[in-house]
Amino acid sequence: MHDSAEARPANPLRDPRDRRLNRIAGPSALVLFGVTGDLARKKLMPAIYDLANRGLLPPSFALIGFGRREWDDQRFIEEVREAVTQYSRTPFDETVWEQLSAGIRFVQGNFDDDDAFGRLEVTLAELDSSRGTRGNHAFYLSIPPKDFELVCQKLSEHGLAQPGEAQWRRVVIEKPFGHNLQSARELNRVVEQVFPPDAVFRIDHYLGKETVQNILALRFANQLFEPLWNANYVDHVQITMAEDIGIGSRAGYYDGVGAARDVIQNHLLQLLALTAMEEPISFNANDLRAEKEKVLAAVKLPDDLSGSSARGQYDAGWQGGEQVKGFLDEEGIPKHSTSESFAAIRLDIHTRRWSGVPFYLRAGKRLGRRVTEIAVVFKRAPNLLFRDHGEDDFGQNAVVIRVQPDEGATIRFGSKVPGTQMEVRDVTMDFGYGHSFTESSPEAYERLILDVLLGEPPLFPRHEEVELSWKILDPFEEYWTALGDQPEKYVPGSWGPASADELLARDGRTWRRP
Amino acid sequence: MHDSAEARPANPLRDPRDRRLNRIAGPSALVLFGVTGDLARKKLMPAIYDLANRGLLPPSFALIGFGRREWDDQRFIEEVREAVTQYSRTPFDETVWEQLSAGIRFVQGNFDDDDAFGRLEVTLAELDSSRGTRGNHAFYLSIPPKDFELVCQKLSEHGLAQPGEAQWRRVVIEKPFGHNLQSARELNRVVEQVFPPDAVFRIDHYLGKETVQNILALRFANQLFEPLWNANYVDHVQITMAEDIGIGSRAGYYDGVGAARDVIQNHLLQLLALTAMEEPISFNANDLRAEKEKVLAAVKLPDDLSGSSARGQYDAGWQGGEQVKGFLDEEGIPKHSTSESFAAIRLDIHTRRWSGVPFYLRAGKRLGRRVTEIAVVFKRAPNLLFRDHGEDDFGQNAVVIRVQPDEGATIRFGSKVPGTQMEVRDVTMDFGYGHSFTESSPEAYERLILDVLLGEPPLFPRHEEVELSWKILDPFEEYWTALGDQPEKYVPGSWGPASADELLARDGRTWRRP
Repeated sequence: MHDSAEARPANPLRDPRDRRLNRIAGPSALVLFGVTGDLARKKLMPAIYDLANRGLLPPSFALIGFGRREWDDQRFIEEVREAVTQYSRTPFDETVWEQLSAGIRFVQGNFDDDDAFGRLEVTLAELDSSRGTRGNHAFYLSIPPKDFELVCQKLSEHGLAQPGEAQWRRVVIEKPFGHNLQSARELNRVVEQVFPPDAVFRIDHYLGKETVQNILALRFANQLFEPLWNANYVDHVQITMAEDIGIGSRAGYYDGVGAARDVIQNHLLQLLALTAMEEPISFNANDLRAEKEKVLAAVKLPDDLSGSSARGQYDAGWQGGEQVKGFLDEEGIPKHSTSESFAAIRLDIHTRRWSGVPFYLRAGKRLGRRVTEIAVVFKRAPNLLFRDHGEDDFGQNAVVIRVQPDEGATIRFGSKVPGTQMEVRDVTMDFGYGHSFTESSPEAYERLILDVLLGEPPLFPRHEEVELSWKILDPFEEYWTALGDQPEKYVPGSWGPASADELLARDGRTWRRP
Repeated sequence: MHDSAEARPANPLRDPRDRRLNRIAGPSALVLFGVTGDLARKKLMPAIYDLANRGLLPPSFALIGFGRREWDDQRFIEEVREAVTQYSRTPFDETVWEQLSAGIRFVQGNFDDDDAFGRLEVTLAELDSSRGTRGNHAFYLSIPPKDFELVCQKLSEHGLAQPGEAQWRRVVIEKPFGHNLQSARELNRVVEQVFPPDAVFRIDHYLGKETVQNILALRFANQLFEPLWNANYVDHVQITMAEDIGIGSRAGYYDGVGAARDVIQNHLLQLLALTAMEEPISFNANDLRAEKEKVLAAVKLPDDLSGSSARGQYDAGWQGGEQVKGFLDEEGIPKHSTSESFAAIRLDIHTRRWSGVPFYLRAGKRLGRRVTEIAVVFKRAPNLLFRDHGEDDFGQNAVVIRVQPDEGATIRFGSKVPGTQMEVRDVTMDFGYGHSFTESSPEAYERLILDVLLGEPPLFPRHEEVELSWKILDPFEEYWTALGDQPEKYVPGSWGPASADELLARDGRTWRRP
């Protein structure tokens, strides 16, 4: 007889490759500090549910919230459920939820409250035996960096940072990883005096994005691109992260930070590293990070910081049919703030592969549209044959990797224009992730949380990378601070201040209008 | 006052570049032999009208039909008008037609009729003075090759082949250019004893196609492709011309000719030459032809003709929901015909660029669908990094140029599959002529007739090319003749006989299924 108990249909969300590669988390508990923040509600809780729904969390997984709110377990479970139903990527499944929520707890307390950490200890011990989490605990610090030291110390004092008889203890921290090289070093010291370096998972969520990981696939799983990926053929590289919104409610954080510290130091320099690095000998964490660090260490700062950078603040004006405030009028931004909402810099990389090929990075708010992309722009082909046919210089071929939105890649090249002459015009061919795959992309945080639980660190920068990135950015920040003036204004919905265009014009180049 | 006579709106079909480059025919007459054929009605007459409509023919252009039919000028004008309204690419414009048709004449006679050639002489002389064609005459022989010699002789005897005080006289001939090397040489001798080599325009209409000319633009106007276009990166090249129809009413021509002589000797070897040749120093006729001839002369025949070729005849069966006859049952095909409706051959090119890179050519009728394409298939990237992640060998990158239908190009490459692993799958990006350009493509014959009138021969093979192509094909034909057997049967709607698959399987490769 057919056993009907066995006949439950296969979960269509489960990818058999994950099972074959044994990419399913083992027994573990995730302790979340900062449960009321936007990140926790909109990204982390939904990602945990999505992982459970895809069959990638074990029955022995537990989630513990730690916070000041006067909540009990049941109330926290309701909070998580609301976040999950509102923001999770995969459909809500009552069976999955019941299984997951049975392992959810809440511990109430302040970060300096020893009693609370005592209760956390007890809760975790109880889950270890009742739920089977086996002492494997990850502490996700979704809290302001100033609290890192305190929380790490308390975890250590209560014996939670040390694995003891368990397999592992890990800590997860989110950017900003400091404010400059010195503060980053101090932060790394604080965290790593409690957790050993390989137990520290620094999340740059850009590295969890499919298209960012696809840079590795495009470059190294193909024969078409890598032979051209060097100074013999590439003219320059443009890395753009543009947002069409203002700073919104982030004024408190943003003032004194600015666009360069906010995203160039981390996201954009990580994109640069993946685009420019040599082929690693494997995708293991050490090998991959070694190549990223090598190329970041080879970045040469321009002699003339003035001519190699540009900054701006968006002005008041109109965008998308709406009247919008200027940066200096945003609530919480001082009238004399010198923080920039747009930054662009030119970097050179002193390796044989990239000698003479500038990398232009720009990031800004209230720009023409929301887009993050890497454009590898090739040298012009010599026009030896077409000039006699009335054809001027060719355009420049380009390979463009779109990180978000509309993830994919575009190649721009010259083609004959239909007609009885030999006219050449630039055309594009396009690959869209959404069109080419039926699989939907996991959220960056699904990938990253799973990697934390699996103990797979390749997508997490180690402290050397963070410090190398600050070494690149600090001189620009110091130069801008020394200037002391307010950044140039730019029109909302434009592509930044005039000085950004001049930055490229000095080199005879122009920015793409993505 | 504004002069209303000057206010006629600009012709939207006119491309200002044609004028700037002076690509407008000068005073001239085109004499068409074979006015009742399909080619004349469906392609040549409409192309002449389209050129006139686009402003590329001068007011002094004249068209003379020469044929056996008992027609007068008026009747011939009606025939042309009907062909134009039915088949021309551009909209019918009464003003253009009036101007064009005023220069249309008909001369009645047989090809051996001296009186008729005398009347042709008189008609042309009359047009030279009344219409202003100035003695520049092109003779388009849209007639069976067996009549070439006779017509050329009569033209010569009546002083029509020699320019005299005019700028030029030209002759246009259509394939087949002979049946093998020997007959091609004889044909060339016959034509070139009357017309000097640079007055002979051999039409391979494939060379008039936009996408065929675009091979030159893709290769030489870009930086992305040419560095990869060699044996270091290319694994092999596949050139396919597939038709989904049978031989139709062409049995009389097709039997004793077969697929290889019909299209491989001309179209496919021309595509091979454009794909494989070195960069010419200019697109002038001599420079371009020199490179094509060089690469055709470097083609090395395989030692084992049996293992490097395949032939087939389509069987009776079903295609597209219709019952279709087998090749041997087609009207006009003898039951014991050994002519092939499918042929595939492997060629090697002994140049540094292509050493070790096979070129596979196939052509056939009643195949899976109608498509002509060139697929440059690249070597697999070494799988150094992805194997640990469960990834087997990569697919092969490819650049595919689609000649017809749906003209354009496709690049196939590997991309990361969305998900929490590092899986790579082949995806494509596509460029479509129709989507990328608002300009509609001129018919191949528009380009080619204009080039004849302009005296621009780069797109016309000279006799050396024709003979080199026969040198490549003759050994295969002789081998097949010596075998004496009937080609293998294949199922209508399939991709040819099993031996075609074996041809590639021997090399560890497979045909694309376009």
